[in-house]
Amino acid sequence: MRKVYLDNMATTPLLPEVYELMLPYLGEAFGNPSSIHQWGDRAREAIETARDQVAELIGASASEIIFTGSGTESNNFAIKGLALAQQKKGKHVVVSAIEHFSVLHSAKTLEKMGFELTLVPVDKHGVVNPEDVRQSLRKDTVLVSILHANGEVGTIEPIREIAQITREANVIFHTDAVAAVGNIPVDVKELGVDALSLAGNQFYGPKGVGALWLRKGVRITPLIDGGVQEGGRRAGTENVPAIAGLGKAAELAKINMASRMEHLALLRDCLLTALPAKIAHVVVTGHPKHRLPGNASFCVEFIEGESMLMLLDSQGVAVTSGSACTSRALKASHVLIAMGIPHALAQSSVLFTLGIDNTSEDIDYVLEVLPPIVDKLRQMSPLYSKFIKVDKGD
Amino acid sequence: MRKVYLDNMATTPLLPEVYELMLPYLGEAFGNPSSIHQWGDRAREAIETARDQVAELIGASASEIIFTGSGTESNNFAIKGLALAQQKKGKHVVVSAIEHFSVLHSAKTLEKMGFELTLVPVDKHGVVNPEDVRQSLRKDTVLVSILHANGEVGTIEPIREIAQITREANVIFHTDAVAAVGNIPVDVKELGVDALSLAGNQFYGPKGVGALWLRKGVRITPLIDGGVQEGGRRAGTENVPAIAGLGKAAELAKINMASRMEHLALLRDCLLTALPAKIAHVVVTGHPKHRLPGNASFCVEFIEGESMLMLLDSQGVAVTSGSACTSRALKASHVLIAMGIPHALAQSSVLFTLGIDNTSEDIDYVLEVLPPIVDKLRQMSPLYSKFIKVDKGD
Repeated sequence: MRKVYLDNMATTPLLPEVYELMLPYLGEAFGNPSSIHQWGDRAREAIETARDQVAELIGASASEIIFTGSGTESNNFAIKGLALAQQKKGKHVVVSAIEHFSVLHSAKTLEKMGFELTLVPVDKHGVVNPEDVRQSLRKDTVLVSILHANGEVGTIEPIREIAQITREANVIFHTDAVAAVGNIPVDVKELGVDALSLAGNQFYGPKGVGALWLRKGVRITPLIDGGVQEGGRRAGTENVPAIAGLGKAAELAKINMASRMEHLALLRDCLLTALPAKIAHVVVTGHPKHRLPGNASFCVEFIEGESMLMLLDSQGVAVTSGSACTSRALKASHVLIAMGIPHALAQSSVLFTLGIDNTSEDIDYVLEVLPPIVDKLRQMSPLYSKFIKVDKGD
Repeated sequence: MRKVYLDNMATTPLLPEVYELMLPYLGEAFGNPSSIHQWGDRAREAIETARDQVAELIGASASEIIFTGSGTESNNFAIKGLALAQQKKGKHVVVSAIEHFSVLHSAKTLEKMGFELTLVPVDKHGVVNPEDVRQSLRKDTVLVSILHANGEVGTIEPIREIAQITREANVIFHTDAVAAVGNIPVDVKELGVDALSLAGNQFYGPKGVGALWLRKGVRITPLIDGGVQEGGRRAGTENVPAIAGLGKAAELAKINMASRMEHLALLRDCLLTALPAKIAHVVVTGHPKHRLPGNASFCVEFIEGESMLMLLDSQGVAVTSGSACTSRALKASHVLIAMGIPHALAQSSVLFTLGIDNTSEDIDYVLEVLPPIVDKLRQMSPLYSKFIKVDKGD
């Protein structure tokens, strides 16, 4: 059976060049970067090379990059660490309603610690209105965090415009760019943000590694205390092979950005056009234009998303109906709900997140196997029977 | 030149079997364990196998194992998470004076949050007296954390005796067993503790992974919020290759524990005996009997430890003079100071932490290259010249 992996939002595979680069650090170059001997030196060189590569990808200085264990850790570190470092100034935090749970739940933790939280809404395409951010600001606002792009629906947010507003108000602005970095051009200077999260396994680098970029001079309270690694801001023996791999993935993302984007957008647009044409009652979710090149997301009316993805899996096709981090919770996506999509429709979500290895044959295969699956599921759906009756005027 | 790695406290190399096992998860088995498709299934199976293997090593149930990103993260999670989950009961925490900084600094963070902290002293061998723990307990004590073994001086603590005291007092007891697990038998039921930290890179598993064992029913506040991974207690995409590697390392540690310990203790005892015999004014640090099989730690009077390890490095020998997590801070070890060792002597610390690949030829080599290094350094030492003069009665 053909195997088609279209769940690159959950995790991307490693590029062969990244894999090859990591191997020595799992082998003879196993030293601890903090050690003062030749094994330590080699490990330290690896992480400093990676720091340069990651900085280069996002237009930052290497000294501003703090390596973490995941995008989720970066977001926790940013939300809690930036708010706590400024709590004498105020205790009000602003995030959007469609943040990843690592941001939303960190903000909820701050609430339990006495902070106040404002959730900024989004429009039907999942776009945050910068004016809503402006109006949410108060004298005691110490942190705004708006995601750069939403992994589920692919919508890209007006980060530069929001950064202008926060800068005028002298409020720290963090963006969760985990879904964006490595997939679309991201330059921290152009954006004008103060802090930015990224993760290796979103752009063909390894799991177990992320980074927080923090503008020089911005204060943060550590999330993980201990040794003096990462300038005393993130303790723990560095995950050298993963950090080295992240660096290589960043280098390759920068070099191949344009060609990757072109390739992905072609496949994406094919899906976005063909799926609603081939299957009735299919709704594209997310922004029609400002979206990640690899994201094609839909709601397929009268269908339960989980059943659809299990049947697709039985045909060798890997997709998801929401964030992998919560897919086992089997709830309707808070992102779709915030976009005003009714609960039942949100349950019918199916997300195709394309990777650079995907081909037009993969898309053809999906367009071949999906329609009979949808037909089969709809025939079993009481809602669909009811709809058909009403539609026929029965 | 011969290369002799004697810094296994900083990090161990990967065993070949662990390396081989990890490779598929860096390759075709790259899925996200939370994904509901075949790629996800394979990744999930890998982490559940690893959970069984880690549980087996420490005599626990698999459901009680929470994977983290490092031993440092496990300690942060335990200290902050256990204290915060019980803060309504009280705000007093007890730790020993010779904890790793990931425990000590986490406790200091709790202090900033309004907790009170008692540091329990140690004797000249680095041993905590259980009676001191008993006397430190108050009505509002919610957490005791005493390390299982100290990586720097190798001393093994009377954990079972302390656990009896905390159990009688109904206080949660965490032990940082990062230096112990995989190197000496550790059984959570026998010990009677409530929570225990461990790390992969301390027993020939990978960096970037640790675990917290938490007795069933013990409540904890997450350190890293977000998705529902690890039962909602530790969010973030699982580092599948590292977790799988940790599992394999645990399995091998259990199988080979006795033979490894015998091998290491032989080499260690050779160093502990020969070094003070070959070089004047060398003091063994740590407990004479209750110590890790791979630990041989010394103070070499009238010498600055950093210089000694740099000269050893130039002869191909990797050692350290303190915890790698702080070796770049160039301070005297808080562990040695707490043991009552004078500051100047503590600065002359040199730690040999042996690994299973070391041979008696490695030890012979060290015993050959070290004496001339010590001679050379002492000749440059003003303190030593002064001492010699006094000694000769000049």
